[in-house]
Amino acid sequence: MSDVDNPRLGAGGLAALFAIGASGGLIGDMCHVEAGTTVYLEEPLPNVWRSQLWFPLMVGSGTAALGWIRVRFGATEGDRAGGESLGDAAAMIASVLALYALTAIVRGEPQPVAIVLVYSVAALICSGFTRGPAELGCGALAALFGVTAEIVLAGAGIFEYADDVSQLAGVAAWLPGLYLAYGVVAARLGMMLARADLRQNRTR
Amino acid sequence: MSDVDNPRLGAGGLAALFAIGASGGLIGDMCHVEAGTTVYLEEPLPNVWRSQLWFPLMVGSGTAALGWIRVRFGATEGDRAGGESLGDAAAMIASVLALYALTAIVRGEPQPVAIVLVYSVAALICSGFTRGPAELGCGALAALFGVTAEIVLAGAGIFEYADDVSQLAGVAAWLPGLYLAYGVVAARLGMMLARADLRQNRTR
Amino acid sequence: MSDVDNPRLGAGGLAALFAIGASGGLIGDMCHVEAGTTVYLEEPLPNVWRSQLWFPLMVGSGTAALGWIRVRFGATEGDRAGGESLGDAAAMIASVLALYALTAIVRGEPQPVAIVLVYSVAALICSGFTRGPAELGCGALAALFGVTAEIVLAGAGIFEYADDVSQLAGVAAWLPGLYLAYGVVAARLGMMLARADLRQNRTR
Repeated sequence: MSDVDNPRLGAGGLAALFAIGASGGLIGDMCHVEAGTTVYLEEPLPNVWRSQLWFPLMVGSGTAALGWIRVRFGATEGDRAGGESLGDAAAMIASVLALYALTAIVRGEPQPVAIVLVYSVAALICSGFTRGPAELGCGALAALFGVTAEIVLAGAGIFEYADDVSQLAGVAAWLPGLYLAYGVVAARLGMMLARADLRQNRTR
Repeated sequence: MSDVDNPRLGAGGLAALFAIGASGGLIGDMCHVEAGTTVYLEEPLPNVWRSQLWFPLMVGSGTAALGWIRVRFGATEGDRAGGESLGDAAAMIASVLALYALTAIVRGEPQPVAIVLVYSVAALICSGFTRGPAELGCGALAALFGVTAEIVLAGAGIFEYADDVSQLAGVAAWLPGLYLAYGVVAARLGMMLARADLRQNRTR
Repeated sequence: MSDVDNPRLGAGGLAALFAIGASGGLIGDMCHVEAGTTVYLEEPLPNVWRSQLWFPLMVGSGTAALGWIRVRFGATEGDRAGGESLGDAAAMIASVLALYALTAIVRGEPQPVAIVLVYSVAALICSGFTRGPAELGCGALAALFGVTAEIVLAGAGIFEYADDVSQLAGVAAWLPGLYLAYGVVAARLGMMLARADLRQNRTR
């Protein structure tokens, strides 16, 4: 098996994924807090922008973990087509931020319509950026662990979703769609950074 | 002329198109009813979810008819590039559902702005998924017959659009844009299913 | 250097860019006026639709200038992949109109959320249609000159943005994002028209 089929994420790649996830999480959470979609009920830690400190740490770690898991799956047939460009990475990140902002914008709308819109846009992001089942698996993992974590934290009274947001077990009904799109993008960013690490090692 | 240039839609393909159209129609119509964009005035038939029974039957039949018409046009130069993937099909369906939900979301917005937004997104869907004039022709057929059918039904007092939705002849001014995008996607799904039928026949 | 590497915009191409820019500007400005995003305070010139005459002239001239500047940069590596189709041009124009309408729709929304949404969609448009740094340079020029011109005109009391729109120096905080996406698209349309001119000259 050649190196191309055996990508690895170094410390630099993991740090980059953490930084992208933490920054994106801060921007998205700011949208939710500004729109009143979510409210922090307990604030034992310092705030970073509009979030409690644990939020960017959680999203940053999750992004690094998803990228690492995706890279462990190894290169698939979809990766043979060649890597994404920097512009593609910008589009991936922008699309998840747009979806995050959309979930905040639709707060006052009829909730069944909001749910259809969010899941449809999430499906567009997934089908636009996935290269195969490995990314969809990472998206499913993100939805499973992200939604479960928010259910636990909301159940513990750490934060809550607004009453007028359609909910399942204390979290927004559109939340799995947001995490799914985020997980697919985190997985692809992981593969991009693994290939960048690979190129650096080769030129040494 | 080879079989590849002579695709055919079997009963299975037509049934799949009917099911996709009927399901998508139910989801989209639910958005319109929830947002108050449309109201059923006469309910002689049983309701399916938020729709009168005739609505999913009409959209399902229309979708099967549009796919069948597209396949009758035959393979064009645009089809030689190879077929769409399952992910592309998901993106097509998701984009039409997103546009459907968008037409419900914009109910309370200034109507000229809503009209520009809906037609712009419809143009993006058409240019993103069309492979040539055959799909645009199916989109035009969908707009012609779909909008005419709704004008007749609204005129007969079966249902109505809300007063605050900008209207032409009793239907929403953005309606042709929604049907155009829907028709282009129905046409491409028809070609995809025709090729799937072809592959099945070959392997027998 | 061959002709392909040395595209030129003739009078016809420049006129087409002017017409596209002026028409698109009229549609977009109508959205802003209808939504109350902007108000003309001084109306010394005749109105064209909902705009003062200087507005479509400014956007039309700007579009022609941006296309001309892009063509002067010459063909880059990104252009070797082949030209865009008419459908791509329609998608480019539709995406900028959709973003323009979006900036009008988000007037009543929490402004930080509106800003994230507009810049994210602008980034998607830029990464979707740019072929390299030359287009991004044109987008930056459009943002620099367009935003500066609006700051001067708003400062002079010619028009104003609504109080509830988050502002920087008298113009909307999302305005640079709108101009950036517009500039990238104007640049690509310029290259498309330059190649069309080239083909016409060759067939003579």
